[in-house]
Amino acid sequence: MKVEVKNMYDDNCIFCKIIKGEIPSNKIYEDDDFCVILDIAPATKGHAVLLPKHHAADVYSLPDEYLEKVLKVARKCADAMVKTLDCDGVNILQNNGEAAGQTVFHYHTHIIPRYKGDGANIGWKPMTPDDNEGLAKKIKENM
Amino acid sequence: MKVEVKNMYDDNCIFCKIIKGEIPSNKIYEDDDFCVILDIAPATKGHAVLLPKHHAADVYSLPDEYLEKVLKVARKCADAMVKTLDCDGVNILQNNGEAAGQTVFHYHTHIIPRYKGDGANIGWKPMTPDDNEGLAKKIKENM
Repeated sequence: MKVEVKNMYDDNCIFCKIIKGEIPSNKIYEDDDFCVILDIAPATKGHAVLLPKHHAADVYSLPDEYLEKVLKVARKCADAMVKTLDCDGVNILQNNGEAAGQTVFHYHTHIIPRYKGDGANIGWKPMTPDDNEGLAKKIKENM
Repeated sequence: MKVEVKNMYDDNCIFCKIIKGEIPSNKIYEDDDFCVILDIAPATKGHAVLLPKHHAADVYSLPDEYLEKVLKVARKCADAMVKTLDCDGVNILQNNGEAAGQTVFHYHTHIIPRYKGDGANIGWKPMTPDDNEGLAKKIKENM
């Protein structure tokens, strides 16, 4: 069922153009509110990008009606990837802001099939936290 | 409001123990169905981990009632991080399977504040896809 929020597009957004079919893509899934395409510069074979059919830059601005459904669509795609690609794992990653690696400012979720030893290296070098107790208290106050 | 699915724990799971308070943690958020703690081996300052109060290994097995709420809780935390830490971006990352970097098999979502030039390097070296058109067709058939 279609979400209540009216789908809205931005004429200058590359993802809006892909959703509307003005730019070609390889879609693996589509419903009234989302489409999922294969990434043209993938991390691994089968790397897909889930796009809400609503122009919102990031997690802060995507309407709840979409946000509630994103992970169910992502799971559907991850299931299909496991069946199709025999992958060993899947990353579900959504970046907000240039500092987080976001390059297109239309909310999107990467669904990345992972294969043992693929070297995609989506992770981090752990730090030793300085003062997690004090930090937790401060963040909590802003919740 | 509490979700319909009964919260279920696994006595041998470290995240279940943290949720139940049997292992100490620095919580930044808690409601009936989720808690969010600071990571003890963070990628960046303020890196948090969102835990459903239900033992399910991964996205494939987490009940819908939780899955629908995960990103709204993640957004709440990301908002508080921006306010508290003055970070420049946020990654929201959920790993499924050892090959994807999952180390604790209780579904969890990383919420990682990002700072310009932090070097956390959560991303990938893009590949040139071999045959996205053929691949899209195959995945679509399994959707």
